[in-house]
Amino acid sequence: MEIHNFSAGPCILPPEVMQEASQAVLDFNGMGLSLIEISHRSKEFVAVMEEARSLVKSLLGLPERFDVLFLQGGASLGFLTAAYNFLPEGGAAAYVDTGTWANKAIKEAKHAGTAHVIGSSKATNYDRIPSLDAVPSGSAYLHYTSNNTIFGTQFAAAPASSVPLIADMSSDIFSRTFDPEAYQLIYAGAQKNMGPAGTVMYAFDRDAIGKTGRTIPSYLDLAVHASKDSMFNTPPVFPIYVSMLTMRWMQSMGGVQAMELRNERKANLIYQEIDRNGLFEGHATVDSRSTMNATFRLKDEAHAAAFDGLWKGAGINGLKGHRSVGGYRASMYNALPETSVQVLVDVMQELERTH
Amino acid sequence: MEIHNFSAGPCILPPEVMQEASQAVLDFNGMGLSLIEISHRSKEFVAVMEEARSLVKSLLGLPERFDVLFLQGGASLGFLTAAYNFLPEGGAAAYVDTGTWANKAIKEAKHAGTAHVIGSSKATNYDRIPSLDAVPSGSAYLHYTSNNTIFGTQFAAAPASSVPLIADMSSDIFSRTFDPEAYQLIYAGAQKNMGPAGTVMYAFDRDAIGKTGRTIPSYLDLAVHASKDSMFNTPPVFPIYVSMLTMRWMQSMGGVQAMELRNERKANLIYQEIDRNGLFEGHATVDSRSTMNATFRLKDEAHAAAFDGLWKGAGINGLKGHRSVGGYRASMYNALPETSVQVLVDVMQELERTH
Repeated sequence: MEIHNFSAGPCILPPEVMQEASQAVLDFNGMGLSLIEISHRSKEFVAVMEEARSLVKSLLGLPERFDVLFLQGGASLGFLTAAYNFLPEGGAAAYVDTGTWANKAIKEAKHAGTAHVIGSSKATNYDRIPSLDAVPSGSAYLHYTSNNTIFGTQFAAAPASSVPLIADMSSDIFSRTFDPEAYQLIYAGAQKNMGPAGTVMYAFDRDAIGKTGRTIPSYLDLAVHASKDSMFNTPPVFPIYVSMLTMRWMQSMGGVQAMELRNERKANLIYQEIDRNGLFEGHATVDSRSTMNATFRLKDEAHAAAFDGLWKGAGINGLKGHRSVGGYRASMYNALPETSVQVLVDVMQELERTH
Repeated sequence: MEIHNFSAGPCILPPEVMQEASQAVLDFNGMGLSLIEISHRSKEFVAVMEEARSLVKSLLGLPERFDVLFLQGGASLGFLTAAYNFLPEGGAAAYVDTGTWANKAIKEAKHAGTAHVIGSSKATNYDRIPSLDAVPSGSAYLHYTSNNTIFGTQFAAAPASSVPLIADMSSDIFSRTFDPEAYQLIYAGAQKNMGPAGTVMYAFDRDAIGKTGRTIPSYLDLAVHASKDSMFNTPPVFPIYVSMLTMRWMQSMGGVQAMELRNERKANLIYQEIDRNGLFEGHATVDSRSTMNATFRLKDEAHAAAFDGLWKGAGINGLKGHRSVGGYRASMYNALPETSVQVLVDVMQELERTH
């Protein structure tokens, strides 16, 4: 039976990427060696790293002033790295509180300085992108989480800001086009649209780093990694390779613009059904809905067993909501086919017909 | 042609591990899903993580007081993590300078306190394990690098110490038995004997952490990771899975004791030839020789082209020495078969016969 993988991340990747990754574990590029047993300094892997860095730049249309790195530690270490590299010693930055991950970013920023929270939707269990206060003067940057995987909310556009932007785009990078001009740093754990778990991408303005007055430990210093072309230490070879393959796939499909159209179609399909079907209701407010993660629940929990039976029977995987929201979460990352969303809509309609 | 992979790391892993890893990328455990597209919180991956943590404990014979984590950032971030978690605020620790990686550990420790260097072999280009001064009183621990990949030196035994030991065992963990009683922390990047690049293992005394008086950023705090069973954030799924498979393989081969016997046989084979063959000389002094990385050079560089032609023609890969030492480096990690070392010895003898 075909499986429809709605997992929130790590998540579905294109089948052709899986095939090529599987083959590379046995024999990479006809070398007679596995990808994972060659030196990271071999010309074959250096070419992978360079293509991965270059694909980020071309897919996102980054200006020349941006450097791209593939490091480790996920966005969780990225929260600290962002603040260490861009928040001046004794300084402050503005943050938006849109849920679990935004909170973690705020917590780590406090190791570097003051984090002004200029908007929060905590009072309504993060069901929306909050309206924002003005960025306090003296703030080094405005940090936000572009998509909130757990709550199913997403910034419709970058927030207006008088200072440079820093965004954690872990769960919606490469899902839609955006203008990178206003950003100082974009970072994203790979394990949604980019690739498997185990690497985190940093794209940043190389002219903006090195100005905090802080002595930064080596692994947390973007300048150290940039000076070594993302090879300061042994990089996570397999996660970077599979990310490179996934970015090649995006490019072959028409790039981020094509992904955006595909993602809009999928999101429309599920949200139209959530709004139409009397048995369900969405968690996120309509204007804050995420195209990546649709959060919804049954109006009557008495139907849960029947609905769970239906979607599991249809080959759907990973639909259970996060414990902080409950209900269901349909994660529809780039590689999820529209047909999978249609299968989910069909079982929602089947539940309606039979209950 | 069979390839003999002497790469210094990432390096050779057992062929059966490659087969199983390749299959898991297509279909993991018959789930109909790839290992890299399932949730890290699925029961299937939680079982992998738990087996990996448990295999470290059983293979190393760790006392009950030890916790085991699989994190990211390599030993390069481990240098900082070790100091942040075990060096008290305003305190000091003792370090041994045995080369490049030891130096990096010392550099990062200075972000946490004072690093007393109690021995160094820098003056002789790190060709030996130095004799050590007494650990200065007030030192929190003694840190050493058990094997020095670049220079081909290795501590024959743990240094005698009046304080707990911390060891970076990245390049010789699981290669030989040792008594873990004296250690507070053992850490090791996976990409030699443990698995592919992309994860780093920490084994530490859970009673010894949380005592530095320091507020530690979350990702660098071992207590944070331990409280979440190594799932504080999304772990590097594939590198941990392949590490688990490699540890299963070690166990099936007879555990670390069997690896040690195998590694001694391989090391004897190559060092006997280096000592016997008039065309070659070793870099490391005899009593400091590593069983993992044999560093040697031609006495007469005029033979380099001929020797390079011979070993490349025999299917040998990754024999070039590190730029800081020059010459050749034969890395003979656990998974390298004795037959590969014999092939290298054969071409060294062939060079002698023909030149």
